[in-house]
Amino acid sequence: MGRNQDIPKAVIKRLSLYSRVLQNLEIKNVQKVSSKELGELLGVNSAQVRKDLAYFGQFGVPGFGYYVSELRSKIKKILRTDRPLKIGLIGVGNLGSALLSYTGFKKQGFHIIAAFDNDKRKIGKKHSDIIIQDIANLEKTIKEKGIEIIILTVPVEKAQEITNNVIDTGITTILNFVPIRLIVPDYVRVHYVDLSIEIESLSYYVK
Amino acid sequence: MGRNQDIPKAVIKRLSLYSRVLQNLEIKNVQKVSSKELGELLGVNSAQVRKDLAYFGQFGVPGFGYYVSELRSKIKKILRTDRPLKIGLIGVGNLGSALLSYTGFKKQGFHIIAAFDNDKRKIGKKHSDIIIQDIANLEKTIKEKGIEIIILTVPVEKAQEITNNVIDTGITTILNFVPIRLIVPDYVRVHYVDLSIEIESLSYYVK
Repeated sequence: MGRNQDIPKAVIKRLSLYSRVLQNLEIKNVQKVSSKELGELLGVNSAQVRKDLAYFGQFGVPGFGYYVSELRSKIKKILRTDRPLKIGLIGVGNLGSALLSYTGFKKQGFHIIAAFDNDKRKIGKKHSDIIIQDIANLEKTIKEKGIEIIILTVPVEKAQEITNNVIDTGITTILNFVPIRLIVPDYVRVHYVDLSIEIESLSYYVK
Repeated sequence: MGRNQDIPKAVIKRLSLYSRVLQNLEIKNVQKVSSKELGELLGVNSAQVRKDLAYFGQFGVPGFGYYVSELRSKIKKILRTDRPLKIGLIGVGNLGSALLSYTGFKKQGFHIIAAFDNDKRKIGKKHSDIIIQDIANLEKTIKEKGIEIIILTVPVEKAQEITNNVIDTGITTILNFVPIRLIVPDYVRVHYVDLSIEIESLSYYVK
């Protein structure tokens, strides 16, 4: 793919934050933005903004800034969110169910197209337009549907075993909601969703 | 409280990331860390690290770095996560239920001590050691238990109305999982949890 894997994870993370901030500016009909303004919206300095974007080529006009829509569509192209992502989810418990019906994903154009569980009472039932499949069909379904990202919402004690199975199917990108570190080969990218980080920073503002 | 409200939100957010990174270093028995190393772990430059920490006073030793445990306990004091936080949750649907039993909160010492719903079938039932209360008791329970932070996991169409009720009780810190912008007075701090951001940055790594 010619994608440079040496770009720091935090830069990629900020790209998705830039994208969100730019989306909000678009909604407000703002046409252009400077690196200083972008930095202020994200809480980093303008040099960091320019440095982040410089990883991916020449953006913006010195002394003028960036065109909001142009920058956003370029960032979407870099992140490859300019096309529908094929997402599967494993573990249709409370959190899994919540994510299947999470309107925040649909708002961004992300659709979960397959869900798996090992509970016979859940398998075959419909949930948010998806029929829950037996996890025994994992490999077959991932290949048939061309699934690219797996969301993991399984119990802690099952997470590593299921991760191994996921990797065996050829999946290399996992979004892990289970609060444990997974052991994976170097070529597999796991993002951890740590819901307590948000509470931690909110704590600062408690009066 | 003499807390400076002008500190950028992103700096506070990074403090909780520093805290998490320092916690991992502690687990690995690492005793000291430089601003360069800390920056690399977070994907910001060392100047940003020093600037972030400088908001809160003098930390570390020039040319040496920071003592891991000392810096972490100072950051916890700043974030005020060095004491038990009193958290309430409104909306015991799928996501609310998932958060009530989320082990990631307990791992960080965060405990949800009250949960509310308006569904008669849920009220009075026990969930993760908490008895779900009628939302009609919101103000009374918040005051009796001294709740400081409210987690919102209600349906989109109810979110603004319930937020208004929450603010009426005197709560000023809200963690919102509902994917809409809430209208709140200036003195109220709302943090938005956008679960699609993680997918967006993961998309970059899809092969």
